[in-house]
Order: sequence, then C-alpha cells, then structure tokens
Amino acid sequence: MRSFVIIGHRVKTSSDFNLNDLCASTGRLDILLRCINAAFFLSGDIRRDTEIYLVLLGEPEPPKTVHLVGSELKYLNPDERSTGALIRNALMKEIKNEEIRSTPGIYVSGKNFEELLKDLENQIIYLKETGEDIRREIVYLKEEGEDVRQMDLQNDAVFVLGGQKDLTEDEEEILKKHNAKTVSLGPVKLHASHCITIVNNEMDRRNSKHF
Amino acid sequence: MRSFVIIGHRVKTSSDFNLNDLCASTGRLDILLRCINAAFFLSGDIRRDTEIYLVLLGEPEPPKTVHLVGSELKYLNPDERSTGALIRNALMKEIKNEEIRSTPGIYVSGKNFEELLKDLENQIIYLKETGEDIRREIVYLKEEGEDVRQMDLQNDAVFVLGGQKDLTEDEEEILKKHNAKTVSLGPVKLHASHCITIVNNEMDRRNSKHF
Repeated sequence: MRSFVIIGHRVKTSSDFNLNDLCASTGRLDILLRCINAAFFLSGDIRRDTEIYLVLLGEPEPPKTVHLVGSELKYLNPDERSTGALIRNALMKEIKNEEIRSTPGIYVSGKNFEELLKDLENQIIYLKETGEDIRREIVYLKEEGEDVRQMDLQNDAVFVLGGQKDLTEDEEEILKKHNAKTVSLGPVKLHASHCITIVNNEMDRRNSKHF
Repeated sequence: MRSFVIIGHRVKTSSDFNLNDLCASTGRLDILLRCINAAFFLSGDIRRDTEIYLVLLGEPEPPKTVHLVGSELKYLNPDERSTGALIRNALMKEIKNEEIRSTPGIYVSGKNFEELLKDLENQIIYLKETGEDIRREIVYLKEEGEDVRQMDLQNDAVFVLGGQKDLTEDEEEILKKHNAKTVSLGPVKLHASHCITIVNNEMDRRNSKHF
C-alpha cells in the first residue's frame, strides 16, 4: 500500500461551502481535491493499492481527517467539482475518534496528525525479500531533502506533505520523532498534487522490470 | 521555451457550456484544464518559459486551437472552474486563421494540428553550446516509446500528447512526417495532465546542476 498524508492547514472542517467556489470559501480545499486526483487516477483505472489522508485543520471543528481508500472507492471522478461533493458529504458526518464511513472508500475521523502518523507507523508490513515484519517508513517531501532518485524507499512508504503551505515547526518535530526521511523531488518548489504525481511515477518505475 | 500540444478530439469548439458541468457537456474540456494547471503552476509562481496549445476538434466549429503563453498570462488560477471561464472567453472570439488575443496570454486560431506542428517545427532556436541554429524537436508522449530518462531531449522541445484518447493513426502519421521522437514516461498509462507534470519535472532536473 502506498499512502499519502496531506495537511490542509486552513481547510474548512464543515460542509457549508459552495461547490461553485472551491477555492476561497473552503480555505483552499481545491488544492486537496487535486491531490486526490493525482493520488488515484490512471488512464481508465484507479490505483487500488493507494490511499490518501487529508488532515484538515481549518475552522470550525479541527482536526478532521478524511481518508480515501483506493481499493474501495466508488463514484470518484477526476474533476474537482464532483470530488468536492464527496468530501462535503464526508464533512457532514458526526465525528468520532474512530473512522466512520461516508461513501464507499471514504472515511472521516477526528484524528490529529500525530495520532495518524502513529497509527500508520504501527502498521506492520511483511517484506517478501527478507521474510521480515517491519514498520512502515515515513517520508517527508520537502525541497531541502535528498534527491528521491538516489534514495532507497520502502514500497509501502507513507509520504507526507503540506497542502497550501509547508509543514509547521511542530509538525516537522512530530515527523522527526517518527524518523521520517526527508526527500526532494526536484529543483523547483511544486504544488502538492504535482508532487504526488511525481512520487507515483517514481514508485511505478521501481515496481516495473522495464524501467 | 517548453511547448505542450494536446489534442482534445471531442472537446467542444463553442462557448455555450456551463462552468458547473465541465466534464460531460464540454466533450471533456476538464481534462485539458488540468493540463493547463500541470503545464504552468509552480508553488507561488507560473512557469514563464512554457506554453501550451489545446487543439479542439469537437463540434460545432472544429478545429480551434487555444494557445496559452506563460510569459504573458494573467488571471490564471490553479482551479478548473476559473480556467474553464478563461477558455470559454477564448471560444467566444470570432476565429481567423491567424491567432487573435482573448485575454492576456491566451490566443485562439483556426489552425489544425498539422499547420500547428509545421509552425512549431519551423521556429528556429539558437543552441548556445554549439552556436548552431536548429529546428525545434517534436516529442510524442506514448507508452510504447523509449524511456524518457534515457533520451537526449532538446530543452526547447515540443511535447505532443492526446487528451482523453490516444492520437489517431492520421495524427501519428503527421508526427512521423515531422520526425517526432516517441518517448515513454513510465510503465503505466497516465492521464495527460500527469504526463505534463512528469515532463516538467524531468526537464527541471536537466536544467539544474543539483539534480
């Protein structure tokens, strides 16, 4: 499983927004909708082995974490507006600490970033090559990191990045505590959704014999 | 200058569509709007050295070619809806064979794919390294091509790809006539906008000393 975690520092945690204005009135939910597109869409298919967590920290009820699971998703289309409607449905749900399902493959919880990272790191994966059971690797995408093409990366890594803004110092401290690798994708500062596309391409190539 | 040419085989060539339905009623203009996002947006900036041509072949008045020029663009935002409004403005213009300006950095003409390729290939560029004047290289993005990471590519190359569908046999014949290189980006079939993001990343890296 490939996981992406994106923090939307200002993204609204209520469902009272207009699908005709997904930018200003939502605290830039539009950025996260493009991340969903980048994470899941192949030409004519959906990446079933991928999931994404959107950690929403805007008013009025932060935090809320929306979780999309590729293997279960239905009704997901590539455009921003229809994906915005699915996320709005999730934000209508009454929040508990545990995840509750909104529509197929879309869950919402009241987890914060640190709780989420702890959960993900504690997921044990089985490494075929060595027969070992290991924890998932956390990878922080940031310009100042080491070049992704030179790095060993776990196939089941968790990739963390900021939505509109960089992560805060506190969030970077949490990543440090979880031994995150800091990885750079290239020489220019990119939109979050473009970062996800490049990570997917890099991992696709590593999983293929022909590239 | 980096150029992208995307063919929208079914994309409507009139402006009578609704911004609340950018998928079905437009012949999948939404796909091309995401290509515009991928071509131009950096975090907090626009790629000024990039341009994109959208060759629209849907009813009622094909062909129309919409041309966006990074160095002149104003009012471009990353979301699909506002970009859709800019393209709709361009489609309201009366078409001539030569380009006419719609809004800053956005032009529209009645050029077809072959005329456009001829124009682009005839743009002479000066190669600093050797002091030569040369024609621009045409690069066709297709899964069956050679791995992009193994290819020499001109910095001012013209990258051609299909929007919703592959290019037709006739269009591939035109590319052959222009000596296009066929280049693959990875092992899985991707959306057009994701291809553009990966090309931009690949070329960014080649233009940097640190990657």
